[in-house]
Amino acid sequence: MIVRTPPSALRLFFIMQGSVVPRIYGKMVSVLLLTLTVVLVDEMLLPLPRISLAAMSVFGVALSLFLGFRNNAAYDRWWEARKLWGGLIADTRSFARQLELFAVSPDDRFALLNMVAAFTHAHRGSLRSCNVERDIAAWVGDEKAKALLARANPADAALSDIAHRLAGLRRKGSLDGFAQMALADTLSRLALSQAGCERIQTTPLPFVYSLLVRRTTYLYCALLPFALLGSVEWFAPVFAVVVAYVFFGLQAVTNELEHPFEPRPNGLPLDAMSRVIERSLRDALGKNIPPALQPKDHLLS
Amino acid sequence: MIVRTPPSALRLFFIMQGSVVPRIYGKMVSVLLLTLTVVLVDEMLLPLPRISLAAMSVFGVALSLFLGFRNNAAYDRWWEARKLWGGLIADTRSFARQLELFAVSPDDRFALLNMVAAFTHAHRGSLRSCNVERDIAAWVGDEKAKALLARANPADAALSDIAHRLAGLRRKGSLDGFAQMALADTLSRLALSQAGCERIQTTPLPFVYSLLVRRTTYLYCALLPFALLGSVEWFAPVFAVVVAYVFFGLQAVTNELEHPFEPRPNGLPLDAMSRVIERSLRDALGKNIPPALQPKDHLLS
Amino acid sequence: MIVRTPPSALRLFFIMQGSVVPRIYGKMVSVLLLTLTVVLVDEMLLPLPRISLAAMSVFGVALSLFLGFRNNAAYDRWWEARKLWGGLIADTRSFARQLELFAVSPDDRFALLNMVAAFTHAHRGSLRSCNVERDIAAWVGDEKAKALLARANPADAALSDIAHRLAGLRRKGSLDGFAQMALADTLSRLALSQAGCERIQTTPLPFVYSLLVRRTTYLYCALLPFALLGSVEWFAPVFAVVVAYVFFGLQAVTNELEHPFEPRPNGLPLDAMSRVIERSLRDALGKNIPPALQPKDHLLS
Amino acid sequence: MIVRTPPSALRLFFIMQGSVVPRIYGKMVSVLLLTLTVVLVDEMLLPLPRISLAAMSVFGVALSLFLGFRNNAAYDRWWEARKLWGGLIADTRSFARQLELFAVSPDDRFALLNMVAAFTHAHRGSLRSCNVERDIAAWVGDEKAKALLARANPADAALSDIAHRLAGLRRKGSLDGFAQMALADTLSRLALSQAGCERIQTTPLPFVYSLLVRRTTYLYCALLPFALLGSVEWFAPVFAVVVAYVFFGLQAVTNELEHPFEPRPNGLPLDAMSRVIERSLRDALGKNIPPALQPKDHLLS
Amino acid sequence: MIVRTPPSALRLFFIMQGSVVPRIYGKMVSVLLLTLTVVLVDEMLLPLPRISLAAMSVFGVALSLFLGFRNNAAYDRWWEARKLWGGLIADTRSFARQLELFAVSPDDRFALLNMVAAFTHAHRGSLRSCNVERDIAAWVGDEKAKALLARANPADAALSDIAHRLAGLRRKGSLDGFAQMALADTLSRLALSQAGCERIQTTPLPFVYSLLVRRTTYLYCALLPFALLGSVEWFAPVFAVVVAYVFFGLQAVTNELEHPFEPRPNGLPLDAMSRVIERSLRDALGKNIPPALQPKDHLLS
Repeated sequence: MIVRTPPSALRLFFIMQGSVVPRIYGKMVSVLLLTLTVVLVDEMLLPLPRISLAAMSVFGVALSLFLGFRNNAAYDRWWEARKLWGGLIADTRSFARQLELFAVSPDDRFALLNMVAAFTHAHRGSLRSCNVERDIAAWVGDEKAKALLARANPADAALSDIAHRLAGLRRKGSLDGFAQMALADTLSRLALSQAGCERIQTTPLPFVYSLLVRRTTYLYCALLPFALLGSVEWFAPVFAVVVAYVFFGLQAVTNELEHPFEPRPNGLPLDAMSRVIERSLRDALGKNIPPALQPKDHLLS
Repeated sequence: MIVRTPPSALRLFFIMQGSVVPRIYGKMVSVLLLTLTVVLVDEMLLPLPRISLAAMSVFGVALSLFLGFRNNAAYDRWWEARKLWGGLIADTRSFARQLELFAVSPDDRFALLNMVAAFTHAHRGSLRSCNVERDIAAWVGDEKAKALLARANPADAALSDIAHRLAGLRRKGSLDGFAQMALADTLSRLALSQAGCERIQTTPLPFVYSLLVRRTTYLYCALLPFALLGSVEWFAPVFAVVVAYVFFGLQAVTNELEHPFEPRPNGLPLDAMSRVIERSLRDALGKNIPPALQPKDHLLS
Repeated sequence: MIVRTPPSALRLFFIMQGSVVPRIYGKMVSVLLLTLTVVLVDEMLLPLPRISLAAMSVFGVALSLFLGFRNNAAYDRWWEARKLWGGLIADTRSFARQLELFAVSPDDRFALLNMVAAFTHAHRGSLRSCNVERDIAAWVGDEKAKALLARANPADAALSDIAHRLAGLRRKGSLDGFAQMALADTLSRLALSQAGCERIQTTPLPFVYSLLVRRTTYLYCALLPFALLGSVEWFAPVFAVVVAYVFFGLQAVTNELEHPFEPRPNGLPLDAMSRVIERSLRDALGKNIPPALQPKDHLLS
Repeated sequence: MIVRTPPSALRLFFIMQGSVVPRIYGKMVSVLLLTLTVVLVDEMLLPLPRISLAAMSVFGVALSLFLGFRNNAAYDRWWEARKLWGGLIADTRSFARQLELFAVSPDDRFALLNMVAAFTHAHRGSLRSCNVERDIAAWVGDEKAKALLARANPADAALSDIAHRLAGLRRKGSLDGFAQMALADTLSRLALSQAGCERIQTTPLPFVYSLLVRRTTYLYCALLPFALLGSVEWFAPVFAVVVAYVFFGLQAVTNELEHPFEPRPNGLPLDAMSRVIERSLRDALGKNIPPALQPKDHLLS
Repeated sequence: MIVRTPPSALRLFFIMQGSVVPRIYGKMVSVLLLTLTVVLVDEMLLPLPRISLAAMSVFGVALSLFLGFRNNAAYDRWWEARKLWGGLIADTRSFARQLELFAVSPDDRFALLNMVAAFTHAHRGSLRSCNVERDIAAWVGDEKAKALLARANPADAALSDIAHRLAGLRRKGSLDGFAQMALADTLSRLALSQAGCERIQTTPLPFVYSLLVRRTTYLYCALLPFALLGSVEWFAPVFAVVVAYVFFGLQAVTNELEHPFEPRPNGLPLDAMSRVIERSLRDALGKNIPPALQPKDHLLS
C-alpha cells in the first residue's frame, strides 16, 4: 500500500510509483501511433471514412458503464478484504482479552496466544503464497511450525490446535463452560474472516467481464481516431492518448485492486497488519514490543 | 468458473471459452445483415428516413441504465451466492472444531462429521439438480444416503439427523448445555446459508425486467442502422456489430450470472468448494486428504 | 412470481403475461396520437416550434437518474422482502431442529410447531390482507384460529403463545435454561423478520418521489414530439412510442416491485413459500408431506 | 408520511400535498422571469452571447451526478431510520415475550413494560424535540415521567431503570442467569437502535455538499437561458421552468428526507409507530388496545 | 462538523466556512487565466485549434464517473466512521447498564466506568494524534493516565485493564459466569468498533485513484478552453471557472471526507461525541453531568 501525501500539481505528472502508466505505456503509444497514422493518411493520401462523435458517445457511455461497474466491484473486494483483516485484528485482541477475563493461567495463555500468532502468519502465507516458516517458528518453534505448514490448511490447523488446547484446559477444570462458549465464538469469527479472505483470493471477478470490458476498450480505442478526424483538429493525438490513459488506466487499476492480497504497490499491507497483531499479542503477554512496520520509499508491504 | 490469467491483447479476440460470443453470434449476424441492407438500399434504391444520433443517444442512456441495473443485480446474486458458500465452508470447519473443543468422543465426531459432509453434498445436489448419491454414500453408506435423498429436503434432513444425534449425546451425558447451545447456533447458521442459496436458486430476477430489457435492446438494435446512415460512413456495419456485441453481450453475461449455481462456464465451482469442505472434514477426522480439485482446460467445475 | 424460461426473440414481443404493456397501453397510444398530431400539423398547417435534441437530452439524463433511483429502491425492497422470508424459512426449520436437539417431547413439539405454522399463515394473511382462517385452522383447530385472528396482531400473538408454552415446559422441568435461551433467540429472529416485512408493507417509497418522477415523465413525453420534429423524420411516431414504452414501462415495473407482498404477477410467491415452511414442519413432525406448489400458467402465487 | 394511492394522470399535476412545488415556487418563477428577460432582450434589443447546449450538457451530467449522490444518501438515511424503528418495534415485542418466556410475574412484567413504553415515548420526544410528558405519564405516572424527562438522556435513563429493576428481580431470585443474559441482550439491541436514530438526527449530510450542490444548481439555472436561446425556440420559458422544477425539486426532496424524524409531510410517522409499540405492549399486558393511528387527510404523523 | 441551517440563496454564494473555495481558489484562477489567454490569442493573434464539445463530453462522462466513484467511496468512509462511533456510544451505555443489571457493586462500577471513559479518550487521541492525557487523567488519575498512554495501543490497553478487573471480580465471586460472558461480548464489540476506526484511519483510498482522478481533472481543465472556443462565446471564462469549481470542488470534498477523523471543518465531531459518552457514564455513576458541547461559530469539534 502506498502511503504518501498527495503530491503538488507540478509533481503530479511525474510520479510513477503506484501509477498505472508504466503498465499501460505500450497501449498508450499504440493509440498514439494509430491516431497519427490515421490523421496523416487522411490529410495526405486519401480521405478516410469518419465516425460521428455522437455515435462514439453512445459507445462511450456503455464503456463507462462497464468500467465503472468493474471498478466498483474490484474496489469492494479490496475494501472487504481490508475489513476482514480489521476483524482479524479485533478478534485476536478480543481472544487475548477473554483469556485474561476468564482467568486462564499465564502459561496456558502463552501457549494459546503463540498459536494465534501462528494462525495469523499461516493465513498470510496462504494468501500471499509466500514462505512464512520463519515467522511462525519465531512463535511456536521450528518443529511445530513445520508440522503446521505440512497440513492441508495451516491456518485452519492452527485454530484446531487452539480448540484442542482449550478442550484440555476444560478437562482439567481450569476453564468453565462460559469461557468455553465465549472462546468458541471468537474462534468461529476468526474462521469466518479466514474463509472470507480465501473467498476473495480464490474467486476472481467472472472471467467473462474481463473479456467483455477489454475487448470493448480495444475496439473503442481503435475506432476513436476515425471519430476525432475533423473534430479536434491538431489535438487529435493528444486527445486520443488522454482517452487511452483514462480507459486503459481504469482497467489496470481494477486488475490490481481485484487481487488485494498480492504484494503489489496498491495491494493491502498484510505484513504491516500482521505486525499490528503481533504487537497486540506481545503486549498481552507482557513481552517487549517490536516497532510497527514503516513504509519504505512510501511503500507499506 | 474459469480460472486463467488474462490473455494478451493479441489472443484476446480469439478466445471463445467463457466468452459470450458463441451465444450471441446469431444476433450479431442479424444486426450486420440488417445494417448492410439498410445502407445498400439507402445508397442504391431509395433514400431511407434517418434517425438523428442525438435521438438515439437519449435511448442509449436509458438502455445503458437498464442493462447496468440488471448487471449489478445479477452480479450481486452471484457474489452473495459465493459468500453464502464461504460461510458454509467456515461453519463446517467451526462445527468440527467445536466438537473437538467440547470434547465429543472420536466415534461420535466421526458420525457427526460424516453427516455434515452428507449435508454439503445434498445441498449441492439440490442446487445443481444433479445426482449426488455416490458422494453422500462415500461418507454415510449406501442405505443412509438413499434414505436421506428420499426426504423432501435432503440437506435439511441431514441437519435434523445431526440435531437428533446431538440430543442423544446430551441424554447420555457426553455433552453439556454450553456445547449444545454453541452447536445449535452453528447449525442455525448452516441452515441460514442453505436457505439463502435456495432463495437465490428459486427466485430469479423479476421476469418483467427480462421482457423490458430484451425488448428495448432489440428495438435499439433495429433502429440503430437508420441512425448510422450518414454519420459513420463506411464504418456502419462494423459499428453496428460492435454495439450489438456490447449490448447483447452484457445481457448474456447477466443471464449467466443470474443463476450462479448452474454448471456453466461462469457459474460457481460448487464441486471444488465441496471438495474444500471434504478436505477440512477429513483433516479434522485425521484421515488422508484428497487433493483439491484442479481446473480442467481452465474450467473449475 | 412468473417462472418461465426466457422466450425466444420471435415470441418475445407477443408475451403479455408479466409485461407492463397492458398497464401502460393507454399512455403509449396517447403519446402516439400526440406525436402524429404534432408531425401532421407541422407538415400541413403551420411550422411548430422545435426543441433541440441536445436540450431534451439534458432532461433525459435527469429523468433516467430519477427512474434509475426509484427502480433501484423498489428492487431493493422486493429483494429484501424475499430475504426476510428466506430468513423465516431458515428460522422455522431451526426452531423445529432445536426442539429436537433440546429433547422436547413429541407432544410438546407437535403443539409448538403447529403454532409456528399458524404464525406463518397469520403473517402471510396480514401482509396480503387475505383470509387465512382455514389455513390456520388446519394446524391449530378452528377455535384457536378464530382466537388468534381476533387479536390485534395475530402473528405476534402466535409467537407469544409459543413463548407461553415454552414457559410452561420450563416450569415443569422439561426444558433447561440453555434451551430456553436458544429458543428465545430464534423467536426474536422470527419477530425481527416479521417486523421487517411489516415495515416494507406499511412504508411505501416517499410519496414525493411518485409525484416528481411521474410529473417529469409526463412532461418529457409531452415535449418529446417537438424535439423529434425534423430529426428522426418518418420514424417520429415509432420513436416516440418506444421511448414512452421505456420510461412509462420502467415506472410501472417500479410500482409493482415497490409492493412485493401484493398478489400481482411480479409479486413474491408467499403461498409457495408458506408451503415450503409447511413441508419442513410436517417433515419435522414425521407427517406426510404435501407437494410443493407448482406455477399455474407460469405463475407461482 | 403521506399515504395515498397514486393519483390519476389528470389529477397528478394539481396535487400540492407532499409536493415540493410550494417550496420551490419562488425559484421556478425567478427562472421563468430570467428566461423571459433573456429571450426578449435577445430578440428585441441586442443579441446576447449564447452557450452551446453541448457545453451545458457537460455541466448537466456533473450536476445530475451531484444531485443523484445526495438523493441516494438522503434516502438511505430515511430508510435506515425506518429500519431502526422497525428494529425497535420487533425488540420491544421480543422483550415482552421474553418476560413471558422466562416466567416473570405479572406485576413485574407490568412495571417493566410500562417502562419500555416510556422509553419509546422518551426516544420519540428527543428525536422530534416535542413534549411527550403526557404520553409517558400515561404509562408510568406523572412523577416518574417528570423524573425521567429531567435526566440528560431520558430514553437512556428509561433503559437503565429497566436494568435496575431486572437486577432487583435477580436479587430476589425470580430471574435466573439465562433470563438475565437474554434480557440484557435485548436491552443492548434497543440501545443500539436508539443510538442509531440519534446518529441520524445529530449528523446531517456534510455541509460542504449543501454548498456545492446548491451553488451548482443556481449557476446551472442562471446559465441555462443563454443555452436555450435559439435551440428550443418558443419553448424556452416552459423548458427552463421544467428543468428548474426537476433540479430544485430533487434538491428540496433531499433536504426533506435528510431529516427523517422531523414532522414534515414526507417524514417518518413516529407517532403511528409509537402507537404500534403501545398496541403490542398493551396486548402483552392483556389490556384493552387503542386503535392504530389513521392518516388524517392522507397524512400519518 | 459544521452545524448550521442552509443559508438563503442570497448569502449562499458568500459563505466561505466549510466551503471548498478557499482550497481550490488557485486552481480556479489558473483556469480563468488560461481560458482568457486562449480566447484572446484565438481572437487577436492566430486561430487556435478547437476541440469539439462532443469529444469533450466523452471525456466528461468518464471524469464524472471517476469523481462520482471516489466521492461515494469517501462518503461511505465518513458515514461508516460515524456509525462506528454511534456503536461506541451505544456499547459504552450498554456496558454501564450491564454492570447495573448484573449487580456489580458501586465501587467496582466506578472503577470500571472510569476506565471505559479512559478508553474513549485514548481511542480519540490515537485517531486524532492529539494529546488526551488531561482528559484521561480526569477519570483515572494522572499516574494511570501516563501508564496507559505509554502502552503501544492505549485504547486496547484500557480494554485489557477492564478485562483484568472483571477477572478479579469473578475470582472474588461478585460476578457470575453469565455476567462475565455478557460483558466479554460487549468488550468484543467495543474492540471491533475500535479496530474499524483504526482501519479507516490507517487505510486511505488507494493512491492510484488519487493519481488517476487528479491527472484526469487537470487534463480536462487544460483542454476545456479549446473546446469552449466558439461554442459559448463571451461566457467562456465564466463557464470554465464554473466547471473548474465543480470538478476541483468535488475532488477537494472527497479529500476531506476521506479522512473523517481529522479536525477539519467537515470532519466528525469526535470531541462532542466523546462528551456524549462522558455524559452517559457520569449519569450512570450518579455524578453531575457536564453540558453537551455546543458548536462554536457553527463548528462542532
